Amino acid sequence: MNKSIIRFILCRVLQFEGLFLLLPVIVSIFYKENTGLIFVAISAGCLALGTLGAHFKPKSKVFYAREGFVVVAMSWILLSLVGAIPFVATGEIPSYVDAVFETVSGFTTTGASILNDVEALTKTTMFWRCFTNWIGGMGVLVFIMAVLPLSGSRNMHLMRAESTGPEVGKLVPRVKTTATILYGIYFGMSLILITCFLLSGLPLYNSLILSFSTMGTGGFADLNKSLGGYSRSAQTISMIFMILCGVNFNAYFLILRRKFKDFWKLEEVRVYLFIVFLSAAAITIQIRGGFDSLGDAFHHALFQVGSIVSTTGFSTVDFNAWPMLSKVILLFLMVVGGCAGSTCGGIKVPRFLILLRSLGRELSHLTHPRSVKKVKLNGQTVSEETVSSVISFMIAYVLVVMVSTFIVAADNMDFTSSFSAVLANVGNIGPGLGIVGPTGNYSTLSDLSKITLIFDMLAGRLEVYPMLVLFYMGTWRKS
Amino acid sequence: MNKSIIRFILCRVLQFEGLFLLLPVIVSIFYKENTGLIFVAISAGCLALGTLGAHFKPKSKVFYAREGFVVVAMSWILLSLVGAIPFVATGEIPSYVDAVFETVSGFTTTGASILNDVEALTKTTMFWRCFTNWIGGMGVLVFIMAVLPLSGSRNMHLMRAESTGPEVGKLVPRVKTTATILYGIYFGMSLILITCFLLSGLPLYNSLILSFSTMGTGGFADLNKSLGGYSRSAQTISMIFMILCGVNFNAYFLILRRKFKDFWKLEEVRVYLFIVFLSAAAITIQIRGGFDSLGDAFHHALFQVGSIVSTTGFSTVDFNAWPMLSKVILLFLMVVGGCAGSTCGGIKVPRFLILLRSLGRELSHLTHPRSVKKVKLNGQTVSEETVSSVISFMIAYVLVVMVSTFIVAADNMDFTSSFSAVLANVGNIGPGLGIVGPTGNYSTLSDLSKITLIFDMLAGRLEVYPMLVLFYMGTWRKS
Repeated sequence: MNKSIIRFILCRVLQFEGLFLLLPVIVSIFYKENTGLIFVAISAGCLALGTLGAHFKPKSKVFYAREGFVVVAMSWILLSLVGAIPFVATGEIPSYVDAVFETVSGFTTTGASILNDVEALTKTTMFWRCFTNWIGGMGVLVFIMAVLPLSGSRNMHLMRAESTGPEVGKLVPRVKTTATILYGIYFGMSLILITCFLLSGLPLYNSLILSFSTMGTGGFADLNKSLGGYSRSAQTISMIFMILCGVNFNAYFLILRRKFKDFWKLEEVRVYLFIVFLSAAAITIQIRGGFDSLGDAFHHALFQVGSIVSTTGFSTVDFNAWPMLSKVILLFLMVVGGCAGSTCGGIKVPRFLILLRSLGRELSHLTHPRSVKKVKLNGQTVSEETVSSVISFMIAYVLVVMVSTFIVAADNMDFTSSFSAVLANVGNIGPGLGIVGPTGNYSTLSDLSKITLIFDMLAGRLEVYPMLVLFYMGTWRKS
Repeated sequence: MNKSIIRFILCRVLQFEGLFLLLPVIVSIFYKENTGLIFVAISAGCLALGTLGAHFKPKSKVFYAREGFVVVAMSWILLSLVGAIPFVATGEIPSYVDAVFETVSGFTTTGASILNDVEALTKTTMFWRCFTNWIGGMGVLVFIMAVLPLSGSRNMHLMRAESTGPEVGKLVPRVKTTATILYGIYFGMSLILITCFLLSGLPLYNSLILSFSTMGTGGFADLNKSLGGYSRSAQTISMIFMILCGVNFNAYFLILRRKFKDFWKLEEVRVYLFIVFLSAAAITIQIRGGFDSLGDAFHHALFQVGSIVSTTGFSTVDFNAWPMLSKVILLFLMVVGGCAGSTCGGIKVPRFLILLRSLGRELSHLTHPRSVKKVKLNGQTVSEETVSSVISFMIAYVLVVMVSTFIVAADNMDFTSSFSAVLANVGNIGPGLGIVGPTGNYSTLSDLSKITLIFDMLAGRLEVYPMLVLFYMGTWRKS
């Protein structure tokens, strides 16, 4: 294990976090809030420590997959441990475990909260809270990669460990350029979203923070009623962008390059949109009695489906009160999530397709032993290595859910709350059902459960492996 | 697909069912119940139809894996559809869907019931109900194989489709002899169990029916309070045999052959016993407050753990009222189940070990790409084919649970009841949590949910593939 390069990259991360922490300071000046000073102090600390540490260049440039996993896992943990300090320092979240929970929830774009009253936060802190959603969405190391000159192989391993989906979709041969393009699209879409919110009549501040949470599919809002407290037009804008952010960002690159034919070949996008509209239609039928019109029911059904499948976690109404079948559909969407290469959590649509097809292949092999079938996706054969990595991912995912449910169950909540809490955190959604539903929060859980869910959020965002590799004994053995 | 041989074997199954149906007749003579006449009539019908059909020998002897799967799935469905007739004919279960549910629950050794008052059944019908547990435990085709002369390759495919576990453990080179030995052990243990019950002071009738349900790990009892209505000594005897029936029956063969060293090499048995005692200890600590003594708490904890892990489903107390962590432990045991080659349902311990180890191998490969690790079990390398079949099994299992939960959720029960109903039926346990818990039953579910759970019970007992292959379009295509 090349420890010096890990130290070096972690210091770079610290420098960037120092810069990020300066943004809320601008907000504090605008709203004349004292909390800005605390952010200045913490930012200065990060910049100083980071610059000092990054001054000593790494001794060796050796960088393999395991270094990639470890760096990514440690970066996200460091980012969260430091990012939590402002909440405690301003006294707005007195417990450090709670603050870390809130920050991890932000960076991993989960949106689960331990706050009983989010409206009590200062504008400065709220800005920081929502900004973590935006940074986490596309990934912090991909961001650093996009702006800093790093060598090729290192980029590839970092990209693989941090981006989502069964395979890394390189848009162009150079990884660094890919990172820049992705962030360009992300940034561009964010600007469009902010403009839409402004046009709908929202103030600049609200347009900014809602855009952060929507684009990152994070789900932090500044009202206790989540998006239920915003206008219908703001809800619709957010809904459209949540669904758009569940799409593989490579698809937008194809559209930008005017490769519309290739765009339509992306099976996962078609399946994703099909799942979204089918689920929304099914839920609309079930909940129509509770709304004034069918259109109204469809609005809330589609909003909730978009919010859950993109793993954002916004809500306009209390879906906890919906019929059981609607809730099970939402639980299913929590597990599936959006496309690969999106800002979503969950298992992701292409993995789901690969799993279904590898099962179909097994059935075909059992009934016609001599048949040789390949697993295909987007019309192309999926390599056996990818198939088996998808399957291992699935096993790891199920195991994490199982073990976490055990630990959270010790809090003696009802089963629905315990189980959905784990699913909602591993899947980076935020609200679950029951006690942790859209009108509730995670404040009543024990510290042990919170720490478990912190692990789950990170495992979900980083797609399990980086977290497992970090804690796997073999990683630290000499090969 | 060789349809004539399928027809031939199904007729054989019908003949055997005709013979089985004569056993309750003996009971009816003893207790002077008129219901015996109905059983005589149905038995006669089965024997006549079966003998007529089996008279025409199959045109071709071609028999591959797919024929094995299809025959096994169709045999179990036929067995259940016919075995349900007495319940309707005697008027004791008026609805045919309910009767099929109860019969499938019996043959698959699930033990889920739609009866609000089991004590209202006649002794004759109760005997048939519990006897289905015994036949289903070791498998009906394995039984036929043990007593009828069938050719070698056919036996192998049938054995593979009906017996449980990731690999077929052939005790001796000939499959037929293996079947005979297994049934010999099963029969011998049943005799010992009946003797134990008699010595504990139970009447012959109760000793017989409880032995059927215990040995088959089925869980049908003749009291509404399940085993809560029996003496402490009867409970203890049942507990010991439930746990013993969760062990791979190959282990008993090794003991009979005095190969004690080989016995201790069976990793899955060690892990199974470890899981049982660890779970019982963990639950004892949590429930000790509700009982008079620690010993009392341990008795009920170990009984319940043994009952769930062996997927029997007996209960002595209402575990639904236990703390959430205890209930989650029981849910976990529902999923895992006992050893391969036992009468249990669930995923089974060796599959669980193979899954964990293939994940370990993936982690090791990620961190040390050049390392070559094999998945081992019982000290021997597991073939790659077995590893991938275990993984496909797991995917299929999860999918069946997901889709079934969707359908059952339409009944609008709470989530805990819907989800645990599916787990308890796919795992062949019987009682779940909530409405379908040990003090409840499945009578209130819709017919659609009952049919779904009927599919789940069969899929669980036959380890998913036979049921999937039966309904897989490709099976019926010409190769």
